[in-house]
Amino acid sequence: MTDHRIGERTILFPNAPGILASAAVVGPKEGKGPFGSLFDLVVPDPLYGQESYEQAEHQIFREACLRCCQKAGIALDQVQALLGGDLLNQIMAASLAARELAVPFLGLYGACSTMAESLILGAILTDGGYASPVLCAAGSHYCTAERQYRFPLEYGGQRSMAAQWTVTGTGACLLSVSGRAMARIAGATIGQVVDMGVSDASNMGAAMAPAAADTLLRHFRDTGRAPQDYDRIITGDLGQVGSDLMRELLKEAGILLDRETHMDCGLEIFDPQDDIHAGGSGCGCSASVLAAHILPRIHRGEWKRVLFMATGALLSPTTSQQGETIPGVAHAVMIEGGA
Amino acid sequence: MTDHRIGERTILFPNAPGILASAAVVGPKEGKGPFGSLFDLVVPDPLYGQESYEQAEHQIFREACLRCCQKAGIALDQVQALLGGDLLNQIMAASLAARELAVPFLGLYGACSTMAESLILGAILTDGGYASPVLCAAGSHYCTAERQYRFPLEYGGQRSMAAQWTVTGTGACLLSVSGRAMARIAGATIGQVVDMGVSDASNMGAAMAPAAADTLLRHFRDTGRAPQDYDRIITGDLGQVGSDLMRELLKEAGILLDRETHMDCGLEIFDPQDDIHAGGSGCGCSASVLAAHILPRIHRGEWKRVLFMATGALLSPTTSQQGETIPGVAHAVMIEGGA
Repeated sequence: MTDHRIGERTILFPNAPGILASAAVVGPKEGKGPFGSLFDLVVPDPLYGQESYEQAEHQIFREACLRCCQKAGIALDQVQALLGGDLLNQIMAASLAARELAVPFLGLYGACSTMAESLILGAILTDGGYASPVLCAAGSHYCTAERQYRFPLEYGGQRSMAAQWTVTGTGACLLSVSGRAMARIAGATIGQVVDMGVSDASNMGAAMAPAAADTLLRHFRDTGRAPQDYDRIITGDLGQVGSDLMRELLKEAGILLDRETHMDCGLEIFDPQDDIHAGGSGCGCSASVLAAHILPRIHRGEWKRVLFMATGALLSPTTSQQGETIPGVAHAVMIEGGA
Repeated sequence: MTDHRIGERTILFPNAPGILASAAVVGPKEGKGPFGSLFDLVVPDPLYGQESYEQAEHQIFREACLRCCQKAGIALDQVQALLGGDLLNQIMAASLAARELAVPFLGLYGACSTMAESLILGAILTDGGYASPVLCAAGSHYCTAERQYRFPLEYGGQRSMAAQWTVTGTGACLLSVSGRAMARIAGATIGQVVDMGVSDASNMGAAMAPAAADTLLRHFRDTGRAPQDYDRIITGDLGQVGSDLMRELLKEAGILLDRETHMDCGLEIFDPQDDIHAGGSGCGCSASVLAAHILPRIHRGEWKRVLFMATGALLSPTTSQQGETIPGVAHAVMIEGGA
């Protein structure tokens, strides 16, 4: 058996699993953003014809998975596993979607790092010949996240300037070792939980930045690469506060990551004119930007090599109320062009 | 690249990853049960010296992982991934334990099927040469689960006779392709979400039974095996109601599973004299019984071949309150003897 690891924490996939197709279904606010025209479907309202925001969230999740399979020309019953999750307690959006999709389901929870986690595990399943094709997906919904993590919208709570806006949307990718791919997963660096003691649940960028810096530094050490080896190093949803912090932490470690090479999905998804404070967040943020913007750019050859690093703030209202600090985690996925 | 699947949903691991060691840390009630003397540590009280049950739950999770590594003679910094989860919102017990263990962390959520899910993904990571050794763990805590899913204990709510008792405990296994193993993972069948319309959150056995039967039937079809090919077919926590239902569903499909061959962890972990109604439940139920009872029996050669199938009820209080039915899922892991 060959060992596919290099360095301490990084995996290189010998078969470079292909991403056959990607799809993103988002809410109206996301549809008004810079990527609006790139999403596969912009639902007209956050309820999406359902009786609750939670039901809407799982229907959006389901729709993104269905459209992804359609675009890849793969029938649902050929899909050998769905790896995914969301922010709802007990990842109910993914679970209910999995029920309706009726494919083998492995539920994941990595907060906003879930899309990277699903891509890593999906790549391992396909690369090793354990399952193919595999669906990887992650989603979130502003209205359910506000109710669950902060206050019901009806409460009309004020948001701090460091607060981020949870994206309503789901991004899905179909991975396979055969077939024409829009991009390939060359490798990944699995992150560890890092907690520098931030306890402000409305400043998650600050809580996630140390984990992002840690994973990035380990990735560079393991691979011998530097920021200039990538066309883009893309974080999930550090937002303004977290992005500045991460670059500062990298700088202290001697790594200069310029604003040109670094892109944060949370800073790109909404219209800057829109009142979203520190940026977008939620599993659906990096997942939908990956599916609608990043992968198509790689497919068109505009970017040859991208490091996609979704970050997660591992907190719950209960632990926050009990005075716990916010552990962060970040996983990096090496995505390259070439069919 | 070789395809390691047989049939539609089953994987056979060419390198049969070994389980180097297992450990279980449980609460006092579990300690009084039939397996009491087999657990690595029985904590004296549910608070385990902490200020909250949630903190106790994550310390129990951490302790089980630490003891597992110690028993395997593997230093924590050699562990290349922790795959695990629990029942807390945002799997905080596993996340906080992962923070203190400081190993790469991939969070999972499969409700009470989490231990089987972690073993399957852990086996894939090690078998394929992507990471080794890997820690697989799942835990739960009666006091946190009651507060989160039902009522705080202080409320003194009455429990229905179909209700199950969430196990306080964590079970952990260390997987590796090298080293002397107490047992090996030969294969696995990944289950799909099945929902027959049960909506009674205090009768989860009934909600999970159809998923258990579905995965078992697919496993037999894929492998050409029958119940008699296994010394034991072990379900996680169907309890009395769910176990009878599953055997009934199998019978309708022409598969006779006798009470001798079928074992349900939820029916074994507590003292029958104890007032636990339909049996034990929670991620920690099958995980701790696997670690303390099942794997040692395989190691001693008393069982040659076991099918470990943990089942999960994918519900949340929110979806239940919104009138959703309870989706179930079950994953089967083929565990065999031999170092």
